[in-house]
Amino acid sequence: MKATIATVKNHLEETVTIGAWLHNKRSSGKIAFLQLRDGTGFIQGVVVKSAVSEEVFEMAKSLTQETSLYVTGKVVEDNRSPLGYELQVSDLEVIHEAEDYPITPKEHGTEFLMDHRHLWLRSKRQHAIMKVRNEIIRSTYEFFNQEGFVKVDPPILTGASAEGTTELFHTKYFDEDAYLSQSGQLYMEAAAMALGRVFSFGPTFRAEKSKTRRHLIEFWMIEPEMAFIDHEESLKIQENYVSHVVQSVLENCKIELQTLERDTSKLENIKAPFPRITYDDAIQFLKDKGFDDIDWGDDFGAPHETAIAEAYDKPVFITHFPIEIKAFYMKPDPNNSKVALCADLIAPEGYGEIIGGSERIDDLELMKQRYDEHQLNGPAYEWYLQLRKYGSVPHSGFGLGLERTVAWITGTEHIRETIPFPRLLNRLYP
Amino acid sequence: MKATIATVKNHLEETVTIGAWLHNKRSSGKIAFLQLRDGTGFIQGVVVKSAVSEEVFEMAKSLTQETSLYVTGKVVEDNRSPLGYELQVSDLEVIHEAEDYPITPKEHGTEFLMDHRHLWLRSKRQHAIMKVRNEIIRSTYEFFNQEGFVKVDPPILTGASAEGTTELFHTKYFDEDAYLSQSGQLYMEAAAMALGRVFSFGPTFRAEKSKTRRHLIEFWMIEPEMAFIDHEESLKIQENYVSHVVQSVLENCKIELQTLERDTSKLENIKAPFPRITYDDAIQFLKDKGFDDIDWGDDFGAPHETAIAEAYDKPVFITHFPIEIKAFYMKPDPNNSKVALCADLIAPEGYGEIIGGSERIDDLELMKQRYDEHQLNGPAYEWYLQLRKYGSVPHSGFGLGLERTVAWITGTEHIRETIPFPRLLNRLYP
Ligand SMILES: [Mg+2]
Ligand SMILES: [Mg+2]
Repeated sequence: MKATIATVKNHLEETVTIGAWLHNKRSSGKIAFLQLRDGTGFIQGVVVKSAVSEEVFEMAKSLTQETSLYVTGKVVEDNRSPLGYELQVSDLEVIHEAEDYPITPKEHGTEFLMDHRHLWLRSKRQHAIMKVRNEIIRSTYEFFNQEGFVKVDPPILTGASAEGTTELFHTKYFDEDAYLSQSGQLYMEAAAMALGRVFSFGPTFRAEKSKTRRHLIEFWMIEPEMAFIDHEESLKIQENYVSHVVQSVLENCKIELQTLERDTSKLENIKAPFPRITYDDAIQFLKDKGFDDIDWGDDFGAPHETAIAEAYDKPVFITHFPIEIKAFYMKPDPNNSKVALCADLIAPEGYGEIIGGSERIDDLELMKQRYDEHQLNGPAYEWYLQLRKYGSVPHSGFGLGLERTVAWITGTEHIRETIPFPRLLNRLYP
Repeated sequence: MKATIATVKNHLEETVTIGAWLHNKRSSGKIAFLQLRDGTGFIQGVVVKSAVSEEVFEMAKSLTQETSLYVTGKVVEDNRSPLGYELQVSDLEVIHEAEDYPITPKEHGTEFLMDHRHLWLRSKRQHAIMKVRNEIIRSTYEFFNQEGFVKVDPPILTGASAEGTTELFHTKYFDEDAYLSQSGQLYMEAAAMALGRVFSFGPTFRAEKSKTRRHLIEFWMIEPEMAFIDHEESLKIQENYVSHVVQSVLENCKIELQTLERDTSKLENIKAPFPRITYDDAIQFLKDKGFDDIDWGDDFGAPHETAIAEAYDKPVFITHFPIEIKAFYMKPDPNNSKVALCADLIAPEGYGEIIGGSERIDDLELMKQRYDEHQLNGPAYEWYLQLRKYGSVPHSGFGLGLERTVAWITGTEHIRETIPFPRLLNRLYP
């Protein structure tokens, strides 16, 4: 019977055949232990010399790393392995012998691994990260579908951008100039006026010459936008969303978190509500901590975010930033027009900002004024202003960076490991 | 109590307040009927002069199209409306008055509507199409998650392409040249070797100067790729997938299909298995039908696809195309090396090809030969060949075009209405 490693649990004490690759092995004169992988998981195949033909035992001993094969064996319980099962091998059939697989169990340099990303993904750690990424995506759809959101795909190719064109990739669009979107937000606002609550999930692009462990050139964002939802209601949706994702990963990625040696006690606590601190208080907090490189009106850098995050064991909302350091479309606080009805959500353990969000300006005159102040114009903004002209309503939205969220939940230090094929300043391959 | 139109069913005989827009209205001296929308649906609000204050009744009569407002009223059953409920209005509060909304209930030209796409999305028909699109996406994730697939996001920016660069958008990637992906397939093959069964859902780009009702410049594809799955098994997964999507839409988009006046009897029948016809038999069939513009070795045009589709009441697989007219990576049929283990899935009712798929070449030498024949090279292919060098396995995959599928299921003639913000030859706005 054909099976996969993920489904052997349904075949206890039965004999199954699995298409797999040899991940690793060790053997003695009488027994060979095959570490097998098939994409759905990892399992140990035990080949006992006395239980198989001489040919099969010799084959088992000579198998090279990443050779593909069909493995037939009986599924038995094995409480020492994360999976809980192993295979008592009765037969092996090689599909294709791999020679000199470049990524051996020894240590490799980062550039070497990145050059072989198409193969590196087969490693236990990268496999686990991709499975957690998948669960974050799956539970994202689950959450927004349950809450009545409609998935909307904003365009990638746009005639102009929300916030200037300096960090945008340019392409000729037949006779016109086009840019790759770095946020679908403006379009999502239009969609929210048509569909109520919407969310996007797609790639965004930033042609930024920065080289940090938190930045990718091409990254995926989830951008919900909600009509008739104010800043306060938006924060509740954000904390419920992030809680749902973290709890889903804990529930459905137990083996992967174990592989990643993630301290899950730090994740179990991630349940709404999340703590909040105003920008004003955060500045004071940092000054009290001895930071002398930040003043009211400055944006936070990574060390500031980390210091604030360390004061909490959950993600923390920093709210009410100064208008000047935030996007032009954020709504001013009616009680203090110097600050915006906005929040950044900072992940614990130094993983930085994972969400930025705000209530949006819904007043046509104020939005026009902002355009003037920010010296924004061009035909692409006409339609955005029209959203304030024809039945404007209070509305809010936010953007979550998928890869930073994967980095946090998996405990991965560098963001390049959180996306299948990372695009970095000097990396467009593979 | 705050509610949405989608949730009034939980508040029968209760008084609720809904944030909404005025979609349309008619009134007489004693009664006003307000067609209200809030993104989650459409509902009729009935304002009876004798039941409300004079101020509220006058307000109701003077409301302009797309004015935003809070409507308070009692939820009652109304079997004449698709929703099944209406609102007996007791109070109205205008949020923002819309003046001279450009899209009136009268007929508008296509270019005018496309120029106002950000507002056109609010119309009943466009709203319904977007909701069906959402359900297709939702049920796609549901299907592949259930079947153990991992969502993988292949890169959009690539150093080179699968099939030449003539129809690709180009951008400078710092000092390098990059192109926008028109298929993630090669990357998905690498991912399948790491994760077993994977699927992508993301934007793809074709800089094609064609102007047909079936083509978009920017469109979304679902690209599954499966290790240890042969052509025959892949066809089964394809027909199960498409069946699942169609049945999900029938189940969860009843109101929208009614709005679209879709003949649902044509959709109810869409259940696996789907009929199959070989390319050879399809050519013969067309000749018998009197087509004299096609011979063995030619690819099908839209009229040919439509003629073949008309012979069936389900989507039909056309299998075993000549190697020459298909992609270089398709595996030849071991019984006839002139044709490939491939299939196109043609939607019924003249909506054309929605899936293309095949088993992939897994032999390194044959793949190298194909590279030579197609004169493909460049560093980006090195890693693709390595997938055949290190533990090659039989594997198959396919790509479904989301917008064509939306067009078919919603019964929409032109593909420009199937995506929120279409990108066409002369259309980069809004
Ligand atoms: Mg920040
Ligand atoms: Mg075709």
